[in-house]
Amino acid sequence: MKNKLGKLKVITLGGVNEIGKNITVLEYENEIIIIDCGVAFPDDDMLGIDLVIPDFSYLVKNKHKIKGLFVTHGHEDHIGSIPYLLKQLSVPIYATRLSLALLENKLKEHKIRARTHVVKAKDKIKVGHFTVEFINVNHSIADASALAIQTPEGMVVHSGDFKIDYTPIQGEPIDLQRFSELGKEGVKLFLCESTNVTSEGYTVSERKIGKIVRQIFEESKNQRIIVATFSSNIHRIQQILDFASEHKRKVAVMGRSMVNTIKTAREHGFIMAEENVLIDLRDLKKYPKEKIVIITTGSQGEPMAALSRMAKKEHKQVTICENDKIILSASPIPGNEKMVFRVINELMRQGAEVIYEGKLEIHVSGHAKKEELKILHSLVKPELFVPVHGEFRHLKYHKDLAIDMGMKKEDIFIMGIGDVLEVSKQGAKLNGTVEAGKVFVDGLGIGDVGNIVLRDRKHLSEDGLIIVVVGLEKGGGPIVSGPEIISRGFVYVRESEELMTNARDVVAKSLENYEIKSRSDWNQIKMLIRDSLKQFIWKKTKRSPMILPIIMEI
Amino acid sequence: MKNKLGKLKVITLGGVNEIGKNITVLEYENEIIIIDCGVAFPDDDMLGIDLVIPDFSYLVKNKHKIKGLFVTHGHEDHIGSIPYLLKQLSVPIYATRLSLALLENKLKEHKIRARTHVVKAKDKIKVGHFTVEFINVNHSIADASALAIQTPEGMVVHSGDFKIDYTPIQGEPIDLQRFSELGKEGVKLFLCESTNVTSEGYTVSERKIGKIVRQIFEESKNQRIIVATFSSNIHRIQQILDFASEHKRKVAVMGRSMVNTIKTAREHGFIMAEENVLIDLRDLKKYPKEKIVIITTGSQGEPMAALSRMAKKEHKQVTICENDKIILSASPIPGNEKMVFRVINELMRQGAEVIYEGKLEIHVSGHAKKEELKILHSLVKPELFVPVHGEFRHLKYHKDLAIDMGMKKEDIFIMGIGDVLEVSKQGAKLNGTVEAGKVFVDGLGIGDVGNIVLRDRKHLSEDGLIIVVVGLEKGGGPIVSGPEIISRGFVYVRESEELMTNARDVVAKSLENYEIKSRSDWNQIKMLIRDSLKQFIWKKTKRSPMILPIIMEI
Repeated sequence: MKNKLGKLKVITLGGVNEIGKNITVLEYENEIIIIDCGVAFPDDDMLGIDLVIPDFSYLVKNKHKIKGLFVTHGHEDHIGSIPYLLKQLSVPIYATRLSLALLENKLKEHKIRARTHVVKAKDKIKVGHFTVEFINVNHSIADASALAIQTPEGMVVHSGDFKIDYTPIQGEPIDLQRFSELGKEGVKLFLCESTNVTSEGYTVSERKIGKIVRQIFEESKNQRIIVATFSSNIHRIQQILDFASEHKRKVAVMGRSMVNTIKTAREHGFIMAEENVLIDLRDLKKYPKEKIVIITTGSQGEPMAALSRMAKKEHKQVTICENDKIILSASPIPGNEKMVFRVINELMRQGAEVIYEGKLEIHVSGHAKKEELKILHSLVKPELFVPVHGEFRHLKYHKDLAIDMGMKKEDIFIMGIGDVLEVSKQGAKLNGTVEAGKVFVDGLGIGDVGNIVLRDRKHLSEDGLIIVVVGLEKGGGPIVSGPEIISRGFVYVRESEELMTNARDVVAKSLENYEIKSRSDWNQIKMLIRDSLKQFIWKKTKRSPMILPIIMEI
Repeated sequence: MKNKLGKLKVITLGGVNEIGKNITVLEYENEIIIIDCGVAFPDDDMLGIDLVIPDFSYLVKNKHKIKGLFVTHGHEDHIGSIPYLLKQLSVPIYATRLSLALLENKLKEHKIRARTHVVKAKDKIKVGHFTVEFINVNHSIADASALAIQTPEGMVVHSGDFKIDYTPIQGEPIDLQRFSELGKEGVKLFLCESTNVTSEGYTVSERKIGKIVRQIFEESKNQRIIVATFSSNIHRIQQILDFASEHKRKVAVMGRSMVNTIKTAREHGFIMAEENVLIDLRDLKKYPKEKIVIITTGSQGEPMAALSRMAKKEHKQVTICENDKIILSASPIPGNEKMVFRVINELMRQGAEVIYEGKLEIHVSGHAKKEELKILHSLVKPELFVPVHGEFRHLKYHKDLAIDMGMKKEDIFIMGIGDVLEVSKQGAKLNGTVEAGKVFVDGLGIGDVGNIVLRDRKHLSEDGLIIVVVGLEKGGGPIVSGPEIISRGFVYVRESEELMTNARDVVAKSLENYEIKSRSDWNQIKMLIRDSLKQFIWKKTKRSPMILPIIMEI
């Protein structure tokens, strides 16, 4: 028993398609620390779902053990689930200034108070047996960190989301020396992100993107400039503000998340704007178009975002014209391509010039590519390695990369969601799983939509439904009312009157002479209705709408 | 009037997101010819739709004028709608041998007979005032053509789908000399495809892909090889058969469309297989794994295709193992990426080695890239130009490309679906539109699913539905039964019992004391139910399920 208690456990508690994403748990004896707690965005088959959060069952069950939540950076997929976690348990939160500021906006929305602690790079926080050190890294948001966690079983390093930018717009380059020092001292376990492991080479510096965008500003002296990007891309926004100042342009900001993030980032000194550069939307008309820059949300083609509304001519303040140059300074997140292209097509149709990725280098990923991953691996030189943040294929490639760099196959663990890796001084092994998985958030509901509801939604979305109502007298007897047939999402009823009339006749015929004796006959009568109608509809249309028989007793 | 009749009309009758796709119409006086007649695949928001075919209203209205349908090649998006057209009118069809063979399979399925004519490259068909010449081009299917159509207003050239392959696997390189000759003689109007206009450079030769795939065969002497590709990619399949022969492997074919296409292509001499190379699925067990090649459908991650079933361990004959090398010799069609990656992840999880695009050049597009388009433009040298086959952004780039090459802006026309371009010796102008657009095929239904049905499906898919049933006595009076509440796709009823009970109470309360006097009150009572329930549900869940009040009279 003692030996077992002595072991460190690493649990990859979260992720939808990506493994070890959103939330990771470290456990030692009676102590737990949590790394990040983010949301995932729903897959295409999660119909109507707004957000996906991790299943917190394991944490709730062990809440007396939890000593702290450590945040690597302020992106949604790393902080977005914190309000939902805090509704179930209390935990002190440690995060850098910008991450915390963004989190606090979120907590305010949810009307939640939390015990938060601001940390900065190089800080070390001791909680129980764990000592957690924040290490500065570069990423597509400011103030991002990796974590080095001293445990009784050795040093654990978690890369967080990172890239190597030797010439960042603001702050320091990634603290490679600290990674090197840690490696020298000995790292037991390395958890490293895998997002870009299938991409060759290096991610270019944010500063290079700036040069290209600056060039576009130079060439657009007579045009209004509209830039869409991620609201969290503080450095991109800073550069655009700088170029606007240089060209004596005013900047208006559109989209709720963009407005909020810029406000928060300015309050904490992460965005610097010259006096009077930022103007109110309502003042747009006061300036000539060629003296305007608009920074907006909608770079992913989101239908409700400001850019989409401009594309559809539904935006109150902005009408797209031939004199507009629109820069989409963001890559489509996989799955969003069609939406993005739809918006681009509409903007172009209105005469605007649209610059998007593929034509010019106007966006750069926030994640390390293959060569950068190699640098970190060669500095950290871990004994054990767990590739995280990726689909299976990414983790597999990352494993292969580590093997190419000299690691032994048996020291690398591809974990699944809920898997427990036990780490001791002697080594490590996968040992069982804990309750883990996806919990769906739909409106205010958390977890009240599950697979059965989704299956029904899918069925309804593909073939619609037919409702059959029949009325019975109380106490039994023949059918006294109906069958009535109502459909939704099945066919144009007006153009398919004959089909629906025939369907009604088919059901009526199947019920002819059927006399209900007791309530126990109800299931049988429902089956009768379902079977006869299903068969008839399939024969006539080769479709299988959901069939809902309803029996009313009067 | 005479002048008007003298004009040639070009109508881009089809397309979903892409303009001038699937079907194009040429009209002169009382004569119409049709170029291609294909299907489009449904967009994400066309829930439950199987296929999208063009609206044939204009053709049906003018069917007495139609002289012929000319097919450029045998891909679904060029021949797939022909059976649906032939259900509404009769027209002689002209196509090359393979295109016609593939079409005839399709007609057989639909139990349709047609007047078909086999043509070959360089053939000229005279129908009325039109003389249509078939010109050999390269594409990702064999036996593909461009068309040169002599009209009283001048020569019209339609590129069809094409690329330039100087070293094709079978058949001749694209007949550049004929395009050159036509250009020399004078081309009035050029319709040219735009699929790859945003891609720089040249499409590489199919033969180069072969070299890489052959290399993979060389390196996989101890592995079973599974290749997934498009069933219509005859040349790719031919190469795989050749490599299998070289390595004394047997080939089994999986997937209905793959089996059918290979059969048809062999019958017409487009695929040559050595004696005994092809084996039956049932004989797979007779050979060692390293002597097997499986050619299969499923390269797009289609859930029902053979490859997906292997990935999900649901395939009867094939169990994936560590000794498998799987080649996905196809690019994901935009929108399919996630499905494809899901299949790749599952195959890798079972230990297989999976080679897909991005890692090695194992697929090549069938469409001309920028430099190839320039070659054709410079040979054809048209007076007027209509970019076709593309989203607006593609057509716009193609227009810009033509301008860069010296064409005048006013001689280039970006058409919309249903637009009519009138061409005369003096020039051309867009002049009005005809009835055109999308018709949805869902099961056996053609056009019985429209926007209202789709809107309902979308609503149902996002929030599900709640049905409220109340029973009334015939002739009026108070509610005698219900309200009963049934939901689907809304919440787990078991876990939300309280919500549903409260919902019932809310409806009951809203109907309290409401006495129905006549049927004309029904709408009001339905509104009452809908409003009270909608408000309650929104307050409690922030969701808006479809609410269906049903009144039964007994």
